[in-house]
Amino acid sequence: MDIDIQLIEQSKIDSVDFNNLNFGRTFSDHMFTCDFKNGEWTNPRITPYAPFTLEPSARVFHYGQAVFEGMKAYKDDNDDIFLFRPDENFDRINKSAERLAMPPVAEDVFFEGLKKLLHLEKKWIKKGLGNSLYLRPFIIATEGAIAASPAEEYKFMIICSPAQSYYGGDVRVIIAEKYSRSADGGVGYAKAAGNYAAQFYPTSLAHKEGYQQIIWTDASTHEYLEEAGTMNIFFRIGDKLITAPNNDRILDGVTRKSIIQLAKDNNIDIEVRRVTVSEIKDAARVGELKEIFGSGTAAVINPIKGFKHDKDSFELADQENSYARFFKEKLLNIQYNKSEDKHGWRVKI
Amino acid sequence: MDIDIQLIEQSKIDSVDFNNLNFGRTFSDHMFTCDFKNGEWTNPRITPYAPFTLEPSARVFHYGQAVFEGMKAYKDDNDDIFLFRPDENFDRINKSAERLAMPPVAEDVFFEGLKKLLHLEKKWIKKGLGNSLYLRPFIIATEGAIAASPAEEYKFMIICSPAQSYYGGDVRVIIAEKYSRSADGGVGYAKAAGNYAAQFYPTSLAHKEGYQQIIWTDASTHEYLEEAGTMNIFFRIGDKLITAPNNDRILDGVTRKSIIQLAKDNNIDIEVRRVTVSEIKDAARVGELKEIFGSGTAAVINPIKGFKHDKDSFELADQENSYARFFKEKLLNIQYNKSEDKHGWRVKI
Ligand SMILES: Cc1ncc(COP(=O)(O)O)c(C=O)c1O
Ligand SMILES: Cc1ncc(COP(=O)(O)O)c(C=O)c1O
Repeated sequence: MDIDIQLIEQSKIDSVDFNNLNFGRTFSDHMFTCDFKNGEWTNPRITPYAPFTLEPSARVFHYGQAVFEGMKAYKDDNDDIFLFRPDENFDRINKSAERLAMPPVAEDVFFEGLKKLLHLEKKWIKKGLGNSLYLRPFIIATEGAIAASPAEEYKFMIICSPAQSYYGGDVRVIIAEKYSRSADGGVGYAKAAGNYAAQFYPTSLAHKEGYQQIIWTDASTHEYLEEAGTMNIFFRIGDKLITAPNNDRILDGVTRKSIIQLAKDNNIDIEVRRVTVSEIKDAARVGELKEIFGSGTAAVINPIKGFKHDKDSFELADQENSYARFFKEKLLNIQYNKSEDKHGWRVKI
Repeated sequence: MDIDIQLIEQSKIDSVDFNNLNFGRTFSDHMFTCDFKNGEWTNPRITPYAPFTLEPSARVFHYGQAVFEGMKAYKDDNDDIFLFRPDENFDRINKSAERLAMPPVAEDVFFEGLKKLLHLEKKWIKKGLGNSLYLRPFIIATEGAIAASPAEEYKFMIICSPAQSYYGGDVRVIIAEKYSRSADGGVGYAKAAGNYAAQFYPTSLAHKEGYQQIIWTDASTHEYLEEAGTMNIFFRIGDKLITAPNNDRILDGVTRKSIIQLAKDNNIDIEVRRVTVSEIKDAARVGELKEIFGSGTAAVINPIKGFKHDKDSFELADQENSYARFFKEKLLNIQYNKSEDKHGWRVKI
């Protein structure tokens, strides 16, 4: 595949304060773009990161045909660059695309675009545990026509945003009782753009009550705990770790599946099964609920300090041997080439 | 409100074949745009219809913050121009916006933008029952930041597309048994962009089986009939007309509520209540299901010739005194200023 490359004249990297990054607000010098036209991916190119033009009638604006991925590039002490299980993101963006009647991205477009871009943006990946270059591949429907049917033209793009170790402060959550993230038979398992906007309003109501996020429950009964806005969720009862099984409402998280594997590798009792709200509340009442944490590419592991459901709220005590810390360290060590990687998750670029 | 106006140099209207319009593919000469920045709507302007630029990180691409409306402008024999219940569209776009944590459009921005634009695009509205200028107001999140939270910046735009009387051929539908359009507590009642892309894939499966559309059922039980992709649905059993009540999964259609009112005005027995799949199938089996039709701005009334559910499929016989035709005529006569308008639905521009 021939990628056309147009370099920036002057890097903006010197104007960036890498010690004070606001997540997702700073972008690197270049971006990758490839168009889908006449049934094929065409004109792969790297250009300066810059605004681009679209028809006001582009279907992405009207019918939400848009899917994305979130990945990170890590640098070790030798300046080598790594991705973490990128095949998973490639497979997932194409599962998402299929559900939204969008064409799958070709494998070479995805991977060669990504690699070439990362080689150009090397300097944007800073060393040090927690530092990374967040990568955002996405596909949008660009065809200008407002008939409510799938577009014939798309753009696949990759943009890059330098990120620091993510600490969003203490996180307390509300367990959803009224609003829902997704339906059975819906698009919850896809990383579809529309799934995220749908969560903003209920999340803003949670903020007003002093909670940072929502743990979504199944839309039919609100009894089963599913996942949070951008994280899968784990519960530790006693020494047992529990997480909900995948279904068509839940995003099949790469971090989640890695934790499940690491738990098995480390003889931690892990159950992938439905978890009810009452089980968690009962466990919390008798002091058996030791931890709740979220898992996702952005934060790796996000410990949850407390939760609210109905009229009840609970605080979780700090654990000396926290699973959250254990898995976070294991994952970071693999991602930053500091430990053995027996499953071959780390991919050198 | 001062609207800045920049006119096209040369209208493209002469290149348009108004007798061969493909829905939503031709746009008029101008468009209206207003930006939301620093907490307010600013810089309302009319400019030539043209592509515009956005950051690759604009939130609409990543998180689907996008809502829209669909309206039509009609011309009567005196060259007067009318809208149909535009207040309903204004209220609804703001309900949609609220659910997606987007700012409501200001009333003067919406209506003055619309009026000024229509005055400029007068020639694009052709006389004759069925001809109209389809109007697409929409709001998109433009702020360039890929944190999963509501944007601070938006664009409200109105684009116009000339439309002919809409006849999509015979329509047969599948009643949904597996896929869903929306969840309880979700965004189904909003005209949110993501709701539409979510329907494309299941609809493409229906196409493969020879059906044009899907009638969605509730996601929990798939027993209750709700609405179609861009239409509300009415069932006629005997001489009784039935349509599902609004809930948070169903779009509160302007055409639907007008039909309910017209039914009352004309002593047609109308019930707004939950309708089950088995009720409809049972009625079809004994020949009591006389009609099914969809209602929506684009097609006004769309008769449905047959449907499939599970292993059963049904064809509906043509009715001599069809409710579908009756309501379509009533609505068109009001919209085109050919009959009395006792509820004040018609608004002269
Ligand atoms: C809804 C949702 N759940 C879970 C996750 C976690 O997935 P991953 O571990 O692949 O980042 C994400 C994405 O980051 C997400 O958007
Ligand atoms: C999902 C959905 N249902 C119903 C309708 C019909 O609504 P209205 O009659 O206001 O056009 C529409 C819009 O056109 C729609 O998008």
